[in-house]
Amino acid sequence: MKLKERKAIKEISSKDKEVVLAGWLHELRDLGKVKFLLLRDVSGIVQCVLKDKKLFKKFSELTTESVIAVKGVVKKAAVKSPEVTRKEIEIEVKELEMINKAETLPITVTEKGIRIALPKRLDYRVIDLRKPRTMAIFKIQSQIIYAFREFFSSKGFIEIQTPCIIATASEGGTALFPVRYFEKKAFLAQSPQLYKQLAAISLEKVFCTVPVFRAEKHNTTRHLNESRQMDIEVAFADDFDVMKLLEECVKFIVKKVKERCKDELNILKISLKVPKAKYLSYEEAIKLLNKHGVDLKYGEDLTPEAEKKLCSLFPNSIVFVHSWPLSLKPFYIWPKNEKVSAGFDA
Amino acid sequence: MKLKERKAIKEISSKDKEVVLAGWLHELRDLGKVKFLLLRDVSGIVQCVLKDKKLFKKFSELTTESVIAVKGVVKKAAVKSPEVTRKEIEIEVKELEMINKAETLPITVTEKGIRIALPKRLDYRVIDLRKPRTMAIFKIQSQIIYAFREFFSSKGFIEIQTPCIIATASEGGTALFPVRYFEKKAFLAQSPQLYKQLAAISLEKVFCTVPVFRAEKHNTTRHLNESRQMDIEVAFADDFDVMKLLEECVKFIVKKVKERCKDELNILKISLKVPKAKYLSYEEAIKLLNKHGVDLKYGEDLTPEAEKKLCSLFPNSIVFVHSWPLSLKPFYIWPKNEKVSAGFDA
Repeated sequence: MKLKERKAIKEISSKDKEVVLAGWLHELRDLGKVKFLLLRDVSGIVQCVLKDKKLFKKFSELTTESVIAVKGVVKKAAVKSPEVTRKEIEIEVKELEMINKAETLPITVTEKGIRIALPKRLDYRVIDLRKPRTMAIFKIQSQIIYAFREFFSSKGFIEIQTPCIIATASEGGTALFPVRYFEKKAFLAQSPQLYKQLAAISLEKVFCTVPVFRAEKHNTTRHLNESRQMDIEVAFADDFDVMKLLEECVKFIVKKVKERCKDELNILKISLKVPKAKYLSYEEAIKLLNKHGVDLKYGEDLTPEAEKKLCSLFPNSIVFVHSWPLSLKPFYIWPKNEKVSAGFDA
Repeated sequence: MKLKERKAIKEISSKDKEVVLAGWLHELRDLGKVKFLLLRDVSGIVQCVLKDKKLFKKFSELTTESVIAVKGVVKKAAVKSPEVTRKEIEIEVKELEMINKAETLPITVTEKGIRIALPKRLDYRVIDLRKPRTMAIFKIQSQIIYAFREFFSSKGFIEIQTPCIIATASEGGTALFPVRYFEKKAFLAQSPQLYKQLAAISLEKVFCTVPVFRAEKHNTTRHLNESRQMDIEVAFADDFDVMKLLEECVKFIVKKVKERCKDELNILKISLKVPKAKYLSYEEAIKLLNKHGVDLKYGEDLTPEAEKKLCSLFPNSIVFVHSWPLSLKPFYIWPKNEKVSAGFDA
């Protein structure tokens, strides 16, 4: 079998006569005289039927997640199983080749049966990654960051690579990971903030998609120790110019994910809508929150509860809160006047 | 003056009557009755002429690198200075506004005059970044990484984010930066190698553009302590499939940089050619090196001198050396047979 002729499962046409496929053995079904296997590659899952007895010995040696190649004839599907992504066709196998046999798995890849607890799934992350749901998340994530860069590149932004190893804290004070940098002490960057500001006063419009590190014990779902920050900085612009850009960018990303990740959104049963945008000053936000039973005074930071309430008041919207009191914002935020900053949160 | 009407210097058309520009004051020239200033933004440099005496007081207050805005009439250039990028036009200034006055600079931004030593330039990196040559390097760098991602995304590759903080070394042994991870000891990743391999056996084709860290004293120009790695991993492919992809990718990147960074290549006086590719087995490479006076035995790693010689033998080419002895390659490289690996270097 020539693997160079291999076709992606998503690309099989019902007009194809014979195809070569390769991938992972997702599931085996033995009905005695007829045997079935579900073949999975990164693009989808297709049902393969074995009727020829000469192939049955090979079938008996198969284990799930083994890497195999098949050559077969494209037929109209007789039985439609819920797992397959190619519901209208099946492959009648003529040749079967074991490329690499899998040992017994510690966790299953199919979404059937017992739910496996997260710690065990993470112990076997490499197998868990093969689940169609997990793969869908990775594919969508990849499209989100790609669309972010597409949007800002098309607007003339220059991508910069801000450093991860830095000499002093750039935001807040305590939540830093110390690094031994030869004879000196250094830290992992919490934010590209200062670097992107210094770049923007020369390069005008910059963006970055860089790792940031926060040494906070993760007892909430709001912070990760290591994450990727998609960030921009713009010269010759005010806070409203920047909020407008971010609004457009989020709409662009959602539009692209809807276009490019139809199958993945189906697998995850997510129906995405391009969001609207709502602009509120900090003062308006506080008044609105007070009206809806959240007790906050002017000058206090928004609590997670307050943020949740604001989002619930404007469903399917990006909520921008602008014109924050200067006292709530760090030194590098532009003061609009003596009381109010040009900082905003979304 | 309405900054919202601002035009990029590169975008000024000789058909424009009046334009609003904003940027940095690159250079001042006082000829008495006529005064000139060179205005720079991220897109270029244009000469501005002040003839109106009412503006002379403002001119006398200007300092280089101040942020200013001008409104003026587009005219045919009288004198062409070598610094300007818009040689055919100049701006006769009607209004001039100081947005932010710069103090005396510790280093100059124009490329004229005394060459400043690198340590001092790095001390004032934020000013050095404004030099047209430095800006050109940043713009080209941004296009290189963008084109890399464009190429592999168009081929169906999924971008993954491999971790920076890891528990054990992934390549070699000693050159690691230790990180204190709460009560545990961790390291900064030297390579995304193992992560991308594990991702590829589920997602088939992955790429990443991630930070890597090597704790080597930088007494050579071959390693940086922190750099960005542009990397791929492919399932169902052999070493030649992967080399061919990389060859195509490098050609694609050079083509895109030539198209998109014409001005920047001119500033740097670089004439780029789309390279050819030369494929050599390790054995062929050793023989060729011996023939050209480099003393290396089969089984020895290529020295920097040997790599230099190979490149000089095939000018304007990417030189791939494949089929390395297994003994020279780490455990995660695919063995083709008992002696030779599918590893390659470029």
